[in-house]
Amino acid sequence: MKVEGKHYRSIWFDKISDEVKIIDQRSLPHRFEIISLESLEEFEVAIKDMAVRGAPLIGATAAYGIARQMQRDSSDESLSSTYNCLNNTRPTAINLKWALDRCKKELWGTSVKDRPKAAMNLAEIICNEDVEINRKIGEFGLEIIKSLSKNKPKGEPVRLLTHCNAGWLATVDWGTATSPMYQAHQQSIPIHVWVDETRPRNQGALTSWELKNQGISHNYITDNAGGHLMQRGLVDMVIVGTDRTTSKGDVCNKIGTYLKALAAKDNDVPFYVALPSPTIDWTVENGVDEIPIEERNEKEVSTIQGKDETGEISWVKVTPEGSLGSNPAFDVTPSRLVTGLITEMGVCEASESGLRKLFPLSERS
Amino acid sequence: MKVEGKHYRSIWFDKISDEVKIIDQRSLPHRFEIISLESLEEFEVAIKDMAVRGAPLIGATAAYGIARQMQRDSSDESLSSTYNCLNNTRPTAINLKWALDRCKKELWGTSVKDRPKAAMNLAEIICNEDVEINRKIGEFGLEIIKSLSKNKPKGEPVRLLTHCNAGWLATVDWGTATSPMYQAHQQSIPIHVWVDETRPRNQGALTSWELKNQGISHNYITDNAGGHLMQRGLVDMVIVGTDRTTSKGDVCNKIGTYLKALAAKDNDVPFYVALPSPTIDWTVENGVDEIPIEERNEKEVSTIQGKDETGEISWVKVTPEGSLGSNPAFDVTPSRLVTGLITEMGVCEASESGLRKLFPLSERS
Repeated sequence: MKVEGKHYRSIWFDKISDEVKIIDQRSLPHRFEIISLESLEEFEVAIKDMAVRGAPLIGATAAYGIARQMQRDSSDESLSSTYNCLNNTRPTAINLKWALDRCKKELWGTSVKDRPKAAMNLAEIICNEDVEINRKIGEFGLEIIKSLSKNKPKGEPVRLLTHCNAGWLATVDWGTATSPMYQAHQQSIPIHVWVDETRPRNQGALTSWELKNQGISHNYITDNAGGHLMQRGLVDMVIVGTDRTTSKGDVCNKIGTYLKALAAKDNDVPFYVALPSPTIDWTVENGVDEIPIEERNEKEVSTIQGKDETGEISWVKVTPEGSLGSNPAFDVTPSRLVTGLITEMGVCEASESGLRKLFPLSERS
Repeated sequence: MKVEGKHYRSIWFDKISDEVKIIDQRSLPHRFEIISLESLEEFEVAIKDMAVRGAPLIGATAAYGIARQMQRDSSDESLSSTYNCLNNTRPTAINLKWALDRCKKELWGTSVKDRPKAAMNLAEIICNEDVEINRKIGEFGLEIIKSLSKNKPKGEPVRLLTHCNAGWLATVDWGTATSPMYQAHQQSIPIHVWVDETRPRNQGALTSWELKNQGISHNYITDNAGGHLMQRGLVDMVIVGTDRTTSKGDVCNKIGTYLKALAAKDNDVPFYVALPSPTIDWTVENGVDEIPIEERNEKEVSTIQGKDETGEISWVKVTPEGSLGSNPAFDVTPSRLVTGLITEMGVCEASESGLRKLFPLSERS
């Protein structure tokens, strides 16, 4: 999508400089910085430190990480160790493993000599597929927004609430939850977005930055506010992304998503999850019992990053000395709270039969 | 309660210096500062800017504000204008109006000459009553904690979750939601408290500071985390305060409370509200329809206060330029989600009949 009028992806291979480039999301929304990733360690750190984040983008980054490492050493040992190294960077998002499995499988059947080129081709293919998948998610999601818009007085916006950043910065382009918003905006359907700040890392500031750059009306709200807004009839639809969806339609996403789903249910607000099919984990049924939840550093909770008075990016500590934070990073929204799953193949019920209608051939791996 | 071993109230009249003193909560938890309030404007600003906050403490502060103003000018006009001025400081908490109504009514029947002394006496009485009410709330709440503790293996803590600060800093002493915690701790019943950070103003940092000073085990968590913790069986009881409770048991409290109540209901976790009876608004039945919700400055959402690297209290801006926040400060939890109301007269069902059993004589005013 556009940044100050110029089109960007969140990750790309720059053929002229022969570098993999990313937008460093640690500096957003305050500073727009592009950095290149070179060594395997740089790829690792970029994922762990969340210079890149969001399930689809993590997968794409891992694919480029393998490609760059294959250019240095394309042996079987190198392929295996690179796989293991990148697979350990973040535990919850399934796209990471999906992308790594795909790379390993395809490259294992490729000669050591051909691997460097094949690996780079594959990374490019994974990125292009992600863009196309998200564009399609947007098309299907747009139909839902259109139908909500029809029931409104002319000119009144459809009010969407989203949590975390499931925007183009979390994917290669378009985003998942934001793709329908961008397509609605392009078709001049009036929308307004309530952007959850999404503590502890305030990814809502990324979503706000995206929306601002596209010129879409929005307000940044506390994660606490959504229930109240729904209770007062100020939300027409909730749409979020996901880091892993089970075969029965449970949705693992950023911590706090479950609370919004409960509020949506309690107020008859439709609650949709936008997801590319690589986010489905066909091996897992019950999300609450089976998905490991990443526990991140307590400092993410007790200190907050922002722009200080001098315009520099700095941190303030919110808690008193001697009080420790606790920081589970994801939660699971049971399928019973989900109105529908918006995928690249269409919209379905959050259930095994719903998913099977759209993806009859996908197998447990 | 104690601060570094010494007992304090959150507001008091210092007879030696002839000053009304408060703990300036804008500097907490980073700096413990006591300031005095003198002019009516200082009382106004202290309430508006949240140097004092919490429904019971706002009421007590207003009573002292009237008392000080009566010492300067005890005429009928002065009493009326002081009442109006203080009544306009914050719209949601009903204790403010309750305390002001009580002062106005009692002082109206007192001669202009006797008013200064009567007003100061009344402020002291309101404070002492608040302390006693909260002590009793703690006794009744303690029984609930004791019964939960009995079902646990010996030594395992009862895990309580609380939202915002309904601690001694929100009252004159003891707190409402925290009073049972303090009494449990004094009786050596093991407890652990999950402290919601409570955006946008992070009053959870105040609760953490209180608990740390009493030596009670706790973790500071994002407001997003509570649902997940309940889903995983890590919360035995939720206990919160309230700014206004309707005659039918709907509970208006800090924004986000409703989301925790939904999660408690979904996971069969008991959800209790601790309240002094002046918090009951007998004139209001349906909280969602009838209680005005304060919309505060958007800067509270887009910027965050904390201690910077140099140890100074400063602010960082979290949102991008060009994105505005929206800041509703309270929400309403319908009575159907409330397990029980803990008052100074005992514990009751969150309903008109429940409240009437404990308060048969209270009237709509």
